Amino acid sequence: MTLTMLERRVLEAVDVDGLLSTLSDLIGIRSLGGEETPAQEYVAAFLERMGLDVDVWELDFDVLRQHPAFGAEVERPGALGVVGAMGEDGGGRSLILNGHVDVVPAGDAANWRYPPWQATIVDGRVYGRGSCDMKGGLACALYAARAIRDAGVRLQGRLLIESVVGEEDGGAGTLAAVLRGYRADGAVVVEPTEMAIAPAQAGALSFQVTVPGFSAHGCVREEGVSAIEKFIPIHQALMELERARNRANEDPLYARYRLPYALCIGQMEAGNWASSVAERLVFRGRYGVAPGEDLEEARCQFEQAVAQAARADPWLRDHSPAVEWWGGQFSPARIPAEHPLVETVGSAFAETAGAPARVEGVTYGADMRLLVNEGNTPAVLFGPGDVRRSHKPDEFVPLDELVAVTRTLALTAVRFCGTR
Amino acid sequence: MTLTMLERRVLEAVDVDGLLSTLSDLIGIRSLGGEETPAQEYVAAFLERMGLDVDVWELDFDVLRQHPAFGAEVERPGALGVVGAMGEDGGGRSLILNGHVDVVPAGDAANWRYPPWQATIVDGRVYGRGSCDMKGGLACALYAARAIRDAGVRLQGRLLIESVVGEEDGGAGTLAAVLRGYRADGAVVVEPTEMAIAPAQAGALSFQVTVPGFSAHGCVREEGVSAIEKFIPIHQALMELERARNRANEDPLYARYRLPYALCIGQMEAGNWASSVAERLVFRGRYGVAPGEDLEEARCQFEQAVAQAARADPWLRDHSPAVEWWGGQFSPARIPAEHPLVETVGSAFAETAGAPARVEGVTYGADMRLLVNEGNTPAVLFGPGDVRRSHKPDEFVPLDELVAVTRTLALTAVRFCGTR
Repeated sequence: MTLTMLERRVLEAVDVDGLLSTLSDLIGIRSLGGEETPAQEYVAAFLERMGLDVDVWELDFDVLRQHPAFGAEVERPGALGVVGAMGEDGGGRSLILNGHVDVVPAGDAANWRYPPWQATIVDGRVYGRGSCDMKGGLACALYAARAIRDAGVRLQGRLLIESVVGEEDGGAGTLAAVLRGYRADGAVVVEPTEMAIAPAQAGALSFQVTVPGFSAHGCVREEGVSAIEKFIPIHQALMELERARNRANEDPLYARYRLPYALCIGQMEAGNWASSVAERLVFRGRYGVAPGEDLEEARCQFEQAVAQAARADPWLRDHSPAVEWWGGQFSPARIPAEHPLVETVGSAFAETAGAPARVEGVTYGADMRLLVNEGNTPAVLFGPGDVRRSHKPDEFVPLDELVAVTRTLALTAVRFCGTR
Repeated sequence: MTLTMLERRVLEAVDVDGLLSTLSDLIGIRSLGGEETPAQEYVAAFLERMGLDVDVWELDFDVLRQHPAFGAEVERPGALGVVGAMGEDGGGRSLILNGHVDVVPAGDAANWRYPPWQATIVDGRVYGRGSCDMKGGLACALYAARAIRDAGVRLQGRLLIESVVGEEDGGAGTLAAVLRGYRADGAVVVEPTEMAIAPAQAGALSFQVTVPGFSAHGCVREEGVSAIEKFIPIHQALMELERARNRANEDPLYARYRLPYALCIGQMEAGNWASSVAERLVFRGRYGVAPGEDLEEARCQFEQAVAQAARADPWLRDHSPAVEWWGGQFSPARIPAEHPLVETVGSAFAETAGAPARVEGVTYGADMRLLVNEGNTPAVLFGPGDVRRSHKPDEFVPLDELVAVTRTLALTAVRFCGTR
């Protein structure tokens, strides 16, 4: 397959300088979970300036909360949905490009070589919190649409650009877009996949475990029971569970990962006074689930591992740790690897990058599940950057991947939606 | 030795109902570290109503902070010193009765059978936060002085009632009293000793350790380094250090304790996002020091144990945990077991309780060290209640001990200061 004149025109219209400038603006907007409104307003204004039909609405959390797929760890005083539409209902297939504006906290800025809340472009990389996860991908989607418009191409099907909130803490934004009626014949979620096409995503269940202890003066600590000490066998049991589950769920789409379904304890607090025995420890984390795995069954395995560790301890036997499924409950999702969407993105990538795309699963939970499971919209993940660079200091996205993804997305839209 | 007529009169004047009422008032005043002013005002008013010369002053933290023995973990916008004096400089020995009004947090009230911030008197016990540590002892001191006054007895030496702040977090209140010039020929710190006379107290050094990790997305957790996992070998090394030090510092005064110099990790926080690898863990605790032990040497042993655990770990070897000696640094202290003060308290106790007093060391750091080491005032700990009941839910002090201690303190003052 070679490029048509029209496709060539679209690719030539990709504005790399504009893309970098928009991405820099986005990184500069500190859009932590719950504080996404300025970023959403920025994207909406961008889409409006491009001449798209833009739908901006206030999320109704009272309604969203009723939905079984709803999850949110962060309290939001308010949040916006933003969808820009171009093209026509002219018989072509419709396509969603979906990206989230929320980012995770930067942690201690002293661990960053480059400032987290400001884009730094150096050595062919754009640094900053969210550059990779996933303002980079979102900028690609915006500039793919813009290239089509700038090339004067009219699509035969609708192209929808969805900018969403709350992906990191449960997917409220994409769920809201689904419930508002935004469904399509295909969707690309522009998460960092290192430009692999992912027709499968693992699930991730957020958990919170409370380990009870019993307080006492630290000088007679043996008269109390330290919740910190009691955490240790539970931690060990969960690490063993992780190993066993990853061995049991081998899948060729995940061949490159030793632990595709990782169990990560990310947060912990214990005690309220340095010289008192800690009477309570709370830890929170994410628990990876394989595509196709039953969520209830996975939760049950976790609860049993905790209960079994507790039974082996004389204190915990009578003072059970409490497991809560708290915050984001990301189901896994998968579409057939031979789906036309996978083929279209694959051929577009091969055309613009000169190399075949890898097709493989991703280990992280993402909004793909809501599009597939709730919106009945076949979806893949495909975007610039390496998830290994996200959620940590000096997050970055490679410049060449930004360009290649923008070109691939533009070509995908042209081919998937058709032109007139 | 039998009681004189005058001594009998003093003992008969002890007002048990008044004591319980005052103790109930004190428990009802939520005097957490840093919030002691209402409790100090209450004690000052009580002493004034009793007709003592009362010195109430605002602590000058700018000056206190300069002193090498100063320690405070809590920020105080302001705090009062309160000392009431009775008796005369008439050739008798002077005696300080010292008690602190600050209490540690109550933790989760759901773990209490009786409400923490209200006295409940049931089955011969007074329940409530601070009942044992040490508003009970303070009430004994107040009512011992009051019995002497009510009996119309005039002391030949000065009796000073010191009500202090900040004992739990570093001893700022007693240090301030020492620096204001309050020294004496003897002092009884009315901490809970189960009515044993303690001529020795262990020290306690507050520490904070920061364990570094490296953040990553939880779905590829092995690309990061979890500070939570790295805590585990350090915890283990410190537990081994505790065992070794307690074996090495055997002392007949501490024969009843398996771990008289306990190392207790009381607080911990790690991570800032459930699905990110924790890049930092901070834990705080107290480190017991034996009487006579060199503080610098003890600190050095702790730091070496952490450093040795770090050297054995490929990540920590290059990313050293940071040890800080943060907050209360309580030196140990000791006076000779045959000191006249020990004898006087011992004979007073035997007389009023009909049984000899136990003489033994206590495991906790207390303000005794400031009186002995900084104020050159020989001191013992002696008070009602069991330290095992403090710093935890359903703290209580036995009623009969409140009575016995009040009587013992009154008789001690009469005998130690002399009468005219």
